[in-house]
Amino acid sequence: MNDATFETRLASAGEAVEETLAGLLAPKPIAGEIARPDRLIEAMRYATLNGGKRLRPFLAVEAARLFGAEGPGVLRTAASVELIHCYSLVHDDLPAMDDDDLRRGRPTTHRAYDDATAILVGDSLLTLAFDVLADEKTDSDPAIRVALVSTLARASGIGGMAGGQMLDLEAEGRFAADGNPLPLGDTDILRLQAMKTGALLTASAEMGAIVGRADKNGRDALRAYGHMLGQAFQIADDLLDVESDAATLGKATGKDSLMGKATLVGLWGIEAARKRLAGLVEEAEKALAGFDARADVLRRAAHFVADRKS
Amino acid sequence: MNDATFETRLASAGEAVEETLAGLLAPKPIAGEIARPDRLIEAMRYATLNGGKRLRPFLAVEAARLFGAEGPGVLRTAASVELIHCYSLVHDDLPAMDDDDLRRGRPTTHRAYDDATAILVGDSLLTLAFDVLADEKTDSDPAIRVALVSTLARASGIGGMAGGQMLDLEAEGRFAADGNPLPLGDTDILRLQAMKTGALLTASAEMGAIVGRADKNGRDALRAYGHMLGQAFQIADDLLDVESDAATLGKATGKDSLMGKATLVGLWGIEAARKRLAGLVEEAEKALAGFDARADVLRRAAHFVADRKS
Repeated sequence: MNDATFETRLASAGEAVEETLAGLLAPKPIAGEIARPDRLIEAMRYATLNGGKRLRPFLAVEAARLFGAEGPGVLRTAASVELIHCYSLVHDDLPAMDDDDLRRGRPTTHRAYDDATAILVGDSLLTLAFDVLADEKTDSDPAIRVALVSTLARASGIGGMAGGQMLDLEAEGRFAADGNPLPLGDTDILRLQAMKTGALLTASAEMGAIVGRADKNGRDALRAYGHMLGQAFQIADDLLDVESDAATLGKATGKDSLMGKATLVGLWGIEAARKRLAGLVEEAEKALAGFDARADVLRRAAHFVADRKS
Repeated sequence: MNDATFETRLASAGEAVEETLAGLLAPKPIAGEIARPDRLIEAMRYATLNGGKRLRPFLAVEAARLFGAEGPGVLRTAASVELIHCYSLVHDDLPAMDDDDLRRGRPTTHRAYDDATAILVGDSLLTLAFDVLADEKTDSDPAIRVALVSTLARASGIGGMAGGQMLDLEAEGRFAADGNPLPLGDTDILRLQAMKTGALLTASAEMGAIVGRADKNGRDALRAYGHMLGQAFQIADDLLDVESDAATLGKATGKDSLMGKATLVGLWGIEAARKRLAGLVEEAEKALAGFDARADVLRRAAHFVADRKS
């Protein structure tokens, strides 16, 4: 698979998911809802319908396609993961957390609106993700829907993404008496990253397999793939943070190293990190060894994640 | 049913739910979780395991009992509603929202810890609620579990509780150019309250019916009951706010009226509000007309909600 084909598939999944998200975030309340307050739904749309790479939904869409599944149910599954991702960005950007003013080149949600609205935007996006998965429009089989809810919840909560953000704040020395960053070793950093970013990327691939009605082997393979891809994503992110400039990335950079935050790149150096990154791409491809050429787009995705410039 | 019997049932449900919550919030990670960071799980326990009336879980437990269901699955269902209730208290208390220092006579979570931790506590409790419901320990039938997820999500998100908090902030004039409270009419106030507090109370009763495998009529009856009880709860709350003092309630009072916030009590006056409250208790009892003496505890609960002094 060449770059152009890959980019087309990535863009095409992104557009389909954007449309699905726009539908889920329509101003009109759905059955069982009393109302959708104007300010809240507008801010939820602002936080969600603004592009981004849509990497997580793309992984879900392509994982499902491996098992022959596509259509509205797959797109709803993919959109639910993006709702979780967007909620986490909104909350992480708050002044009480990472205090960021820019996200994807635009004011963050709490800067465009206010802190209270941003908190409620995050809460509502998070809740909507599970509402979407539990709805029969996502899959006719309740067992599939409940497996999706379970996988997403466990990846997003205290044992996954939210817990990872807690560890990240601690690593920055936020709660240390001297305010200095904590001296973390490889194991600590790997766990932090597996929780903060890895768990949701892994869940994206696994949920694609679930909604594709994969058997246990298929589901395990996609989870292993997502796990390797997640690690690659984070090392690439840390490398980008060291190397890129604000103009390319559209957000403040160099911030992690300025804060002395522990990363694998900081611990190992750039060259060793690059080597590990290449190894992870290989392992991600290896996890897909049981699949034919239909898995080429996911294989290519591992390279894309490792090589990305923003 | 006399008061003593009712109080015993309320206390007994509260204790059972407390134990279930403590188990769900154990420090050790469960399968599929990478870790439970110490600070986060400790703060989640602080925010959750501190008593309170446990009214919502009580409604779920008693609604389930009406249909002959009890045991761990019912308690997990009841606990999931309390997790949502506790998350909403933690987020609503934040400085960016209602800025409260005291809750149930103790420092609020962000005062005992910090704002960032409190945000993550809320996010993690919210996520855990759906994790709990989706787990097969809650019910062997995926269709039941997914109905529980759906009912709770729709009651808690933009179309319910979170949307209600948005409307409440707006009603206080938070986003008005002059900062003055908005002049709301009955319809606006009823909608705001139906979303902010009514939806979750209604869901509590309905989820008890769902996990009790009620038929459509049974489920509708419990939903109607919950709806009336929710309205009664809010009027009683507004009356309390006008009449009680800080010592009894353990939190700042008179705040709503000081802020000129629109309530039905403010709009109608105390006597008319009391009359409506009595009417709602009657309607709640009427919704249970199809049930025998086993429903007496829920009938009594409507009086309890209307007459409570804290």
